[in-house]
Amino acid sequence: MPSPVLISLDAMGGDHGPPVVVGGIAEYRKRHGGDGVRFLLNGDEAAIRAEITRCGLPDDLFEVRHTDKVVSMDEKPATAMRRGKGSSLWNAIEAVKTGEAAAVVSAGNTGALMAISKLILRMSAPGLERPAIVASWPTKRGVTAVLDVGANVESDAAQLVEFAIMGEAFMTAVHGVARPTVGVLNVGSEDMKGHEEVREAARLLREGGLGLSYHGFVEGDDIAKGTVDVVVTDGFTGNIALKTAEGVAKFIGGLTRDALTSSLLAKAGAALAYAALKRMSARIDPNAINGGPLLGLNGIVVKSHGGATPDGFGAAIRIAVDLARSDYMTKVGAKLQRLTTVLEQPPAPDADTAKESSQ
Amino acid sequence: MPSPVLISLDAMGGDHGPPVVVGGIAEYRKRHGGDGVRFLLNGDEAAIRAEITRCGLPDDLFEVRHTDKVVSMDEKPATAMRRGKGSSLWNAIEAVKTGEAAAVVSAGNTGALMAISKLILRMSAPGLERPAIVASWPTKRGVTAVLDVGANVESDAAQLVEFAIMGEAFMTAVHGVARPTVGVLNVGSEDMKGHEEVREAARLLREGGLGLSYHGFVEGDDIAKGTVDVVVTDGFTGNIALKTAEGVAKFIGGLTRDALTSSLLAKAGAALAYAALKRMSARIDPNAINGGPLLGLNGIVVKSHGGATPDGFGAAIRIAVDLARSDYMTKVGAKLQRLTTVLEQPPAPDADTAKESSQ
Repeated sequence: MPSPVLISLDAMGGDHGPPVVVGGIAEYRKRHGGDGVRFLLNGDEAAIRAEITRCGLPDDLFEVRHTDKVVSMDEKPATAMRRGKGSSLWNAIEAVKTGEAAAVVSAGNTGALMAISKLILRMSAPGLERPAIVASWPTKRGVTAVLDVGANVESDAAQLVEFAIMGEAFMTAVHGVARPTVGVLNVGSEDMKGHEEVREAARLLREGGLGLSYHGFVEGDDIAKGTVDVVVTDGFTGNIALKTAEGVAKFIGGLTRDALTSSLLAKAGAALAYAALKRMSARIDPNAINGGPLLGLNGIVVKSHGGATPDGFGAAIRIAVDLARSDYMTKVGAKLQRLTTVLEQPPAPDADTAKESSQ
Repeated sequence: MPSPVLISLDAMGGDHGPPVVVGGIAEYRKRHGGDGVRFLLNGDEAAIRAEITRCGLPDDLFEVRHTDKVVSMDEKPATAMRRGKGSSLWNAIEAVKTGEAAAVVSAGNTGALMAISKLILRMSAPGLERPAIVASWPTKRGVTAVLDVGANVESDAAQLVEFAIMGEAFMTAVHGVARPTVGVLNVGSEDMKGHEEVREAARLLREGGLGLSYHGFVEGDDIAKGTVDVVVTDGFTGNIALKTAEGVAKFIGGLTRDALTSSLLAKAGAALAYAALKRMSARIDPNAINGGPLLGLNGIVVKSHGGATPDGFGAAIRIAVDLARSDYMTKVGAKLQRLTTVLEQPPAPDADTAKESSQ
């Protein structure tokens, strides 16, 4: 049996609170059995106990830490930091800080989760202003990690390289890819394309001796193709790419549904093809890939979508468990250390810099 | 009958040259009849004449300007500018400069088209380094114009406002929207979200008195929802959003095809639903929305996809004709003029600047 591990959960987070959080544990156990994972549930004890009973889960699977205090879904991050102490979200993260729990999962307010995680756990990557969020993106070849998808609005070259380091370790820990390939998102694949930040990040990834399997620049359509395992981008572009893709997937899904219910003939066709269409939509089901780790913190924090189903919340728990049981933290720590050394060295003279210095 | 108009075409551009260009004219005429549009074809006269005969088109529809010289699809923009004079691409654009033709369409090398258009026609918007490319994006509610999707890697606030002005006039001229709404692409809809450039652009659009119907910030998923008629973004983000969306659409299309051919039952279902599925895919067919104008030039230049079908090339011709017959150029000119005035004025003191100046 794998090593025992305690996962801390914000039981009050998300649009539904305890029913989805405890229901998520039930779903997790359906898939992964009694694999030595126990849970610390933070929130309203009565509501939590009621859900544990409803789901028929064994009591010794849980510790429950009662609090009445909840950070609401629309609380501003600054307010949450000032007034959030003692809330279910705060306590859930604190259990990681003290070492009691190996990771935390919350479906709560993203801004508050980010701000309080940063306050309590601190950043492990020196250049990062905010944790990076990684999306597990379904592709033709499986799953690609895309980061940052929302936290860091502007990212310099060093941050982009930090994302590469974290994304690589994430793909190994969570998706079992032995030697993930890394690409930098750009408007073309040629070396001279894009702005200064992406070009400098590419140089560092190519020459920095960070031991990453760097592929080169990739374009937007390379994400769904699965050209690389890790796609690195600033949080502004990443967030827009992710939401644009979600919008397009929903739009096409809606068109397909409309088409397949537009006539009796089409409905009959859809009925015949039902099993095949269902298998297909499972491949791009947002719940199956729910769970975006906040990377770059001294501790494992996983954000679940606020509107996730129990099944989706279970998927987010799985990511937290995989990260907690892997050597993710030490591996990232070592590579970030190496990056710091590289950044402190003056760049090796190459054709470009030689030309500049001779002018 | 609408006013006569001459459209200049680079007959050698694209992956296929004359068969698609002349074939595109045939497709255009199938849809729009003899609507007073004539064509100036630039390129290899023998090849062009052969296609005219093959398509059974009347000779008096055309002027043919022979040249042996062609800018290849992989020529670098700088080389194309130096050596491109007298090529089919160059001559096609020059006919707009001299006033002989009302617009030019090319399926050729994008970088070369952009560079030579800029060299010959010059920019009309003072802040623009390069023409902006606008994509007509199929949405739940029809079509949304997204720009810039690729030419300007970094865009300041004034450029984003120029995109708004050009996108608005484009939606009216080409898609017949009387009073298009405009949104700025961002990572959230609240005023304080995003980086300096988008926030300042939003302020100018809100307060600049440019007579635009400004909606506010929109997010990635608002594009496919059709929340606004015009989505404004820098060329880096826009290019990545567009290609990401194309990748996702292709991926889902592939999954759907796989699902509907995965078993005999599914195949039977697909056969029954065939007509409905076909109508649906027509709505997101890239050929139906082919044709991205290069905006911001003193003249109308439309880029067709290099791999477009004759049908797709015909759609690009339609865009050129609509722009040429509208008041697009004068409308944009007047608003750009007003923007220049606004930018030269010191900003009105509001709460923020008052606070800053009192410190």
